[in-house]
Amino acid sequence: MITFDFARSMSAAVGAGGITDEELSREIERTGEVCRKLPKWGFCELPYSEEVAYRVLRAAAEWKPSPRTFVQIGIGGSALGATALASALRVPSSPRYLALDNVDPEECSAVLAELDPAETVYHVVSKGGETTETIAAFLLALERAGEKRFLVTTGSSGFLRDWARRVGAPVFDVPENVGGRYSVLSPVGLVPAAFLGIEVRDLLAGAVLADEACRREDPRRNPAYLLAVVPHLLDRLRGMKIHVMMPYARALRDVADWWRQLWAESLGKSASVGPTPVLALGATDQHSQVQLYNQGPNDKWILFLWPEKFRADPAVPALFPDQPACDYLQGKPLSTVLRALRQGTEEALTANGRPNAALSLPEISARTVGALLYTLEMATAIAGTLYGVNPFDQPGVDAGKRFAFSRLGRSGFPSATSTPGEDRYVLRA
Amino acid sequence: MITFDFARSMSAAVGAGGITDEELSREIERTGEVCRKLPKWGFCELPYSEEVAYRVLRAAAEWKPSPRTFVQIGIGGSALGATALASALRVPSSPRYLALDNVDPEECSAVLAELDPAETVYHVVSKGGETTETIAAFLLALERAGEKRFLVTTGSSGFLRDWARRVGAPVFDVPENVGGRYSVLSPVGLVPAAFLGIEVRDLLAGAVLADEACRREDPRRNPAYLLAVVPHLLDRLRGMKIHVMMPYARALRDVADWWRQLWAESLGKSASVGPTPVLALGATDQHSQVQLYNQGPNDKWILFLWPEKFRADPAVPALFPDQPACDYLQGKPLSTVLRALRQGTEEALTANGRPNAALSLPEISARTVGALLYTLEMATAIAGTLYGVNPFDQPGVDAGKRFAFSRLGRSGFPSATSTPGEDRYVLRA
Repeated sequence: MITFDFARSMSAAVGAGGITDEELSREIERTGEVCRKLPKWGFCELPYSEEVAYRVLRAAAEWKPSPRTFVQIGIGGSALGATALASALRVPSSPRYLALDNVDPEECSAVLAELDPAETVYHVVSKGGETTETIAAFLLALERAGEKRFLVTTGSSGFLRDWARRVGAPVFDVPENVGGRYSVLSPVGLVPAAFLGIEVRDLLAGAVLADEACRREDPRRNPAYLLAVVPHLLDRLRGMKIHVMMPYARALRDVADWWRQLWAESLGKSASVGPTPVLALGATDQHSQVQLYNQGPNDKWILFLWPEKFRADPAVPALFPDQPACDYLQGKPLSTVLRALRQGTEEALTANGRPNAALSLPEISARTVGALLYTLEMATAIAGTLYGVNPFDQPGVDAGKRFAFSRLGRSGFPSATSTPGEDRYVLRA
Repeated sequence: MITFDFARSMSAAVGAGGITDEELSREIERTGEVCRKLPKWGFCELPYSEEVAYRVLRAAAEWKPSPRTFVQIGIGGSALGATALASALRVPSSPRYLALDNVDPEECSAVLAELDPAETVYHVVSKGGETTETIAAFLLALERAGEKRFLVTTGSSGFLRDWARRVGAPVFDVPENVGGRYSVLSPVGLVPAAFLGIEVRDLLAGAVLADEACRREDPRRNPAYLLAVVPHLLDRLRGMKIHVMMPYARALRDVADWWRQLWAESLGKSASVGPTPVLALGATDQHSQVQLYNQGPNDKWILFLWPEKFRADPAVPALFPDQPACDYLQGKPLSTVLRALRQGTEEALTANGRPNAALSLPEISARTVGALLYTLEMATAIAGTLYGVNPFDQPGVDAGKRFAFSRLGRSGFPSATSTPGEDRYVLRA
């Protein structure tokens, strides 16, 4: 279902910047055995949860009156997966999707003022049940909409769990052994999927197929292992510490944004380990980032992502038959134009010795996207093993939270002492 | 108007990862003299073009009937500046703004199907007048809307110029000596600004004030020089090759996206020169990228961007008085919460020895945004001098275009020979 072509990451295609055949073989010898004993991590159980699929579908079907807008209130792993699914797969006739994934005063004010609570359903998501940004947005929405418009997805205890119980709001679980960034196939992502008309069962079925592929014991046939080992080798052996995911499909842009969190939080763990994930969108960012990718430092691996087929594909109309600026485009489907632009970028990068690869789907559907998300999760978990870090924790986000709680006067946190910068380093222009 | 605080980029604050006072002084001695003889680059004339301001404002005022949607058809520098202005400054009662800045088949199809041409104005922008993506989208829009709904901004010759002349469409100039990524204060950005109710004259007045500040001969008082020298030194002396711009304001997100192109295309010029710009959004990306920034490799400089005041600022309602998960938030304006989250992130990064800095505006207004964009342009041009590269060309984007033209069968380009990857590096999973 998914094709991973990494020929252009090899030295045969890109020269010294690429991986040699010998280096790949040696690494497979050294680490390929992980494929023979891959753990069943917590998130690996999610594709098989038929009962959860049944429950979220029923909750969506029974929601009356049917909403015009679905709002996901959550941040980080509690929003990115839902947004990725909505962007890729939302059925046009279903409610529109919005994420309240920030505490921006102007944005929250505008979004909440514009919504009619009677036609809106709010899905509040926080595993711990008390994430600062999420609670703030929840309180603002609750004040306007009243408790009958809410569903909750949360862990087994905490403020949101208690509140949902008290007011009788539908409540779904984030399993204890599944972290936020691996939670898209739990109710965190399945509740929005169900409301947005996405085939929840196909999504899970795609992930089940991917699970089978990702458990192949032959490392050279295991897509998750290869998707981990290629960027890992380029990072370790060639210093390529920037990993770019570049979808050529607007519908997959937010899959790349979701992956940015997955890759950064899972692997960014020490002064010597932590590739920086970057999102670029084709063809748009050809006119923004590709100058740098082509001629700047050879410190990047670029992973193209694209579907073979689009769900709509208008042809460029032939309005100016003999005009050289238009002639080569007229009559061609836009997909042909977009494909040529991608191929041009791939070929230019390759000619410049910049390693790249392609991940492609036959089409954008619940099955293929389910498979894609799951494969990327498995690849990330395996990359954690290759890098020698725990891909499931995020100890580095707590320090900032503690400082912020101090500034907000949360009880139990020492009050903050302001440390202004030395004035000679402050310019008021 | 703009405050640049780089105290947290200095070793006094962040230890070994930061710049020492001596290094800064030495660099100012070595390169600070550029401030005494800054050229009047092409883009430097734009803030002073009162006649252009008059013309675009008149064109918008005379457009009848007044449009409900403004569509910018352009890519790269022909869209990013307009989008940045629209996101930051669009007046709510004015037309909504859309950019057709790609040839995504599904996106183009959905956008064009949804628009009522009679209520839409299309602004087609291409300096050369024949950018592939822009011409394709233009033809699609023209077929549906008819030629009376278009304005054109382009260079002095080319297909779009000829077409506009022939049909009598209003046409504006991209000056020959202004490149796309420095064109936001030309009609490329001013035409959308005028239609979106943005105070065009204030925008330019802000840029004029910034021009004065950026021409201060004392390098320690010159914001553009300091904004160039700090990341340049961190890159050259400490290997910090990733420069993150992190707005804590949704309205400024697209300013950072515009800057991404400016910084990447202007400086990404050789195997040894080219910092990678990255966009992160606060507070959202605290839950996505900050783990990596705090604990991963110390190879990043993070520039926070924020306004002191927001144009709306709802308070978190006090719905659960004695609830510890809510208590520290209730009654506080969202801006207070957002500020604390930013300060927490700044303090955690600093405590972890990660250099960062802050660029702040007193408010988000046409004046401050005009000043901000212009200051960043000047900083980029000066950074080109410090890095020893030409910040105004982009030779690395042509190779990809040639390959794409071959694949599209454009006359004058050799037909493409497909070079499939070696099969053993292709996995169909």
